[in-house]
Amino acid sequence: MTTFDYDLFVIGGGSGGVRAARLAASLGKRVAIAEEHRLGGTCVIRGCVPKKLFVYASQFHEHFEDAIGYGWEVGKNTFNWRKLIAGKDKEITRLEGLYRHGLENNGVEIIESRAELINAHTIRFLRTGETVTAEKIIVATGGTPNPHTSLPGHELCISSNEAFDLPELPRSILIAGGGYIAVEFANIFHGLGVHVTLIYRGKEILSRFDRDLRHGLHKAMTEKGIHIVLSDVIENVTKTPEGGLMAKTMDGKSIAVDSVMLALGRNPNTQELGLQAAGVKINERGAIIVDKYSRTNVTNIYALGDVTDRVQLTPVAIHEAMCFIETEYRNNPTAPDHDVIATAVFSQPEIGTVGLSEEEATKRYPELEVYRAEFRPMKATLSGRVEKTIMKLIVDAVSRKVLGAHILGHDAGEMVQLLGVALKAGVTKEDFDRTMAVHPTAAEELVTMYKPSYRIQNSERV
Amino acid sequence: MTTFDYDLFVIGGGSGGVRAARLAASLGKRVAIAEEHRLGGTCVIRGCVPKKLFVYASQFHEHFEDAIGYGWEVGKNTFNWRKLIAGKDKEITRLEGLYRHGLENNGVEIIESRAELINAHTIRFLRTGETVTAEKIIVATGGTPNPHTSLPGHELCISSNEAFDLPELPRSILIAGGGYIAVEFANIFHGLGVHVTLIYRGKEILSRFDRDLRHGLHKAMTEKGIHIVLSDVIENVTKTPEGGLMAKTMDGKSIAVDSVMLALGRNPNTQELGLQAAGVKINERGAIIVDKYSRTNVTNIYALGDVTDRVQLTPVAIHEAMCFIETEYRNNPTAPDHDVIATAVFSQPEIGTVGLSEEEATKRYPELEVYRAEFRPMKATLSGRVEKTIMKLIVDAVSRKVLGAHILGHDAGEMVQLLGVALKAGVTKEDFDRTMAVHPTAAEELVTMYKPSYRIQNSERV
Repeated sequence: MTTFDYDLFVIGGGSGGVRAARLAASLGKRVAIAEEHRLGGTCVIRGCVPKKLFVYASQFHEHFEDAIGYGWEVGKNTFNWRKLIAGKDKEITRLEGLYRHGLENNGVEIIESRAELINAHTIRFLRTGETVTAEKIIVATGGTPNPHTSLPGHELCISSNEAFDLPELPRSILIAGGGYIAVEFANIFHGLGVHVTLIYRGKEILSRFDRDLRHGLHKAMTEKGIHIVLSDVIENVTKTPEGGLMAKTMDGKSIAVDSVMLALGRNPNTQELGLQAAGVKINERGAIIVDKYSRTNVTNIYALGDVTDRVQLTPVAIHEAMCFIETEYRNNPTAPDHDVIATAVFSQPEIGTVGLSEEEATKRYPELEVYRAEFRPMKATLSGRVEKTIMKLIVDAVSRKVLGAHILGHDAGEMVQLLGVALKAGVTKEDFDRTMAVHPTAAEELVTMYKPSYRIQNSERV
Repeated sequence: MTTFDYDLFVIGGGSGGVRAARLAASLGKRVAIAEEHRLGGTCVIRGCVPKKLFVYASQFHEHFEDAIGYGWEVGKNTFNWRKLIAGKDKEITRLEGLYRHGLENNGVEIIESRAELINAHTIRFLRTGETVTAEKIIVATGGTPNPHTSLPGHELCISSNEAFDLPELPRSILIAGGGYIAVEFANIFHGLGVHVTLIYRGKEILSRFDRDLRHGLHKAMTEKGIHIVLSDVIENVTKTPEGGLMAKTMDGKSIAVDSVMLALGRNPNTQELGLQAAGVKINERGAIIVDKYSRTNVTNIYALGDVTDRVQLTPVAIHEAMCFIETEYRNNPTAPDHDVIATAVFSQPEIGTVGLSEEEATKRYPELEVYRAEFRPMKATLSGRVEKTIMKLIVDAVSRKVLGAHILGHDAGEMVQLLGVALKAGVTKEDFDRTMAVHPTAAEELVTMYKPSYRIQNSERV
């Protein structure tokens, strides 16, 4: 029967691809995975993991300051960028090794080469020119920062990819973008002592998040000393005689910095993959079009993760991989569930959010209750730090269901993971009300907001 | 009709008493509250609040160490105990003021005196000798550390009360007890540079908590350098010629320290309150016996919080106060709900726990699934800190309901508050499974444990 070299061939060794390959092999399938760079993908190599390590590094600065209010006399502390990079690289290499071992232990063949499709069942390795065939193929090649090639001087700019490996820490940086990557890096660089300006075309950072979190984070960042420019964009970037960069903005500003980072979205990696040869359709953004089971228009070719036009998050790619395995190899058709996904922004303070923002909920539900608390975190009482934690619950006044939960503050990411469990299970406001507080915590505020801060009826705040 | 001076008289200005007084007054009742010491009670004055501030203070030590692995060169840091005490005192005074304003703004009369019952409707103020009458009376006088008067040398020892206001930080301390107060202070003092020994009569610290958390915390504390002595008790404490203390243990050990702290449980404050004169019954522990609506055997006298023999937690006392208001003044009989209470131990690492431990669940359910993860927190990868996070879910294999959730690790208190919402709502393991992970967080481990670590059938691990 078997006329293919492999039962499954995966192109791309990121979170989704590796999980699919490993699980398929563990079920006895003959599997290979091709990765041209390093195993681990965006998340491990130049995304979530190094980002979170940088966040930790950038928080010590505030710990040193906070200690003073708690009775510590703090000596002089200096930061060494290269030491952080070396530590980060070591950890990434360790994680990469874990991915490799996970694949190898399950018998997945690892091909260290870029791979392209020749037709719906044939893959060619660019390093050797070899071709192999596979019954099923998964494209999980992820995405890449948008290089914004139409910007004059874009070649002088860096993206998050380079930010993880700068040879030295700039004294000043201009970050273009208002999404979570721009915001996270603005806080990281600021915490490491860099003078940071963020420029964004929109009216407020983090579009699509709840308005209170957007305003609250903006305010917190500004109070720290991050300069935020809204409703403006960079028009060109040039080198200065001194070796720095000069960015001119549409609004007529001239911003002189050591470095400019573009964080203007990410594009799916669908170029030079042979998708056309194989007949795989992509959309106008270049993302692979898939059905609810992650299948492309070519019946034996699937796509997972950021290369598709769904939700671009590591856990989602992994979930899609696990659903693929259930559907294709366990006779249990399972469509990935993209509803009510909790997410975090590792800004400082953090954002944790799940479900509908007040704005979205207002569009969809005739009658809402909004519970909102804004308070100084307990730690700030002695540290003297100026900061506010914001917590919000959006409740459908008719069904009593909690539609959205939003947090700006320390540990918001950890909290929202577990709010995610509650909201996914469809809990009501009464379930929150009858939960005993854990004191003293910040999260207890979420179970002690007994009266709505305001109500919204037919899109009007009443 | 009204022949009483007050509709409600509250004895004790802690969490439960203040809430009851304030809410009753806000409904138009004529209310007075008597407090002999300071408004705020154990929680604000010598419990949760200063404890958490001390925890923060004691954590900087680890932040300074962790910073090194993240590229920081850290200067010499020294700790000044008196500065911490001064900061803590200022914050407590601020909070006390908030309590006072909350009462005053609602028209509660504040009596700064110890009060005792003369009969079921009459209260006498010890400071002035004045007597007043009230239709309803709440006793909310809280509890006090057990002074262990049968221990020779107990008068040389301190309790948590004194620990909050020591004139200077001891170089070494012996803490007797294995409950959360003993454990929290052991970690606080250790973090502030004190040489700490903990002695406990039981076989493991924190009886009644899940065994994995007990062992895990014990191990973490030992690895830090806290000395834990189990199955032993102090037999006597004497002064040494050098001005220190010497504790002899039943097991024959001699432990020389600057200070000995007894954390051997807390007694309800029911002495010299006139309870007998009023006919109010107490149990063999000295706690006031109440029915499910917090009513004593005397129909117009109620008791709330730690003075009763229920759950000794601030939020529980507040909840009991709110239920009292519903029942007595809103015509909505509401019994306090003491089931599935999430709690935290602010040890380092923290404990967060809700629902049944594995041991309790084993006694009550024929078939269980236990999901257990133990991992190094991400921050420790670069800091090099030796520590493990433990997470556990206890699931009823029949109903699929999650019966217990237990965490040892950073932010466990914040996490368990929201696990509390989910467990109170009765979520199943499938609700956890279909929740998308938030990456990278520690809490995501709780939603990605797809296979049981082991099963328990009829009390046997299989």
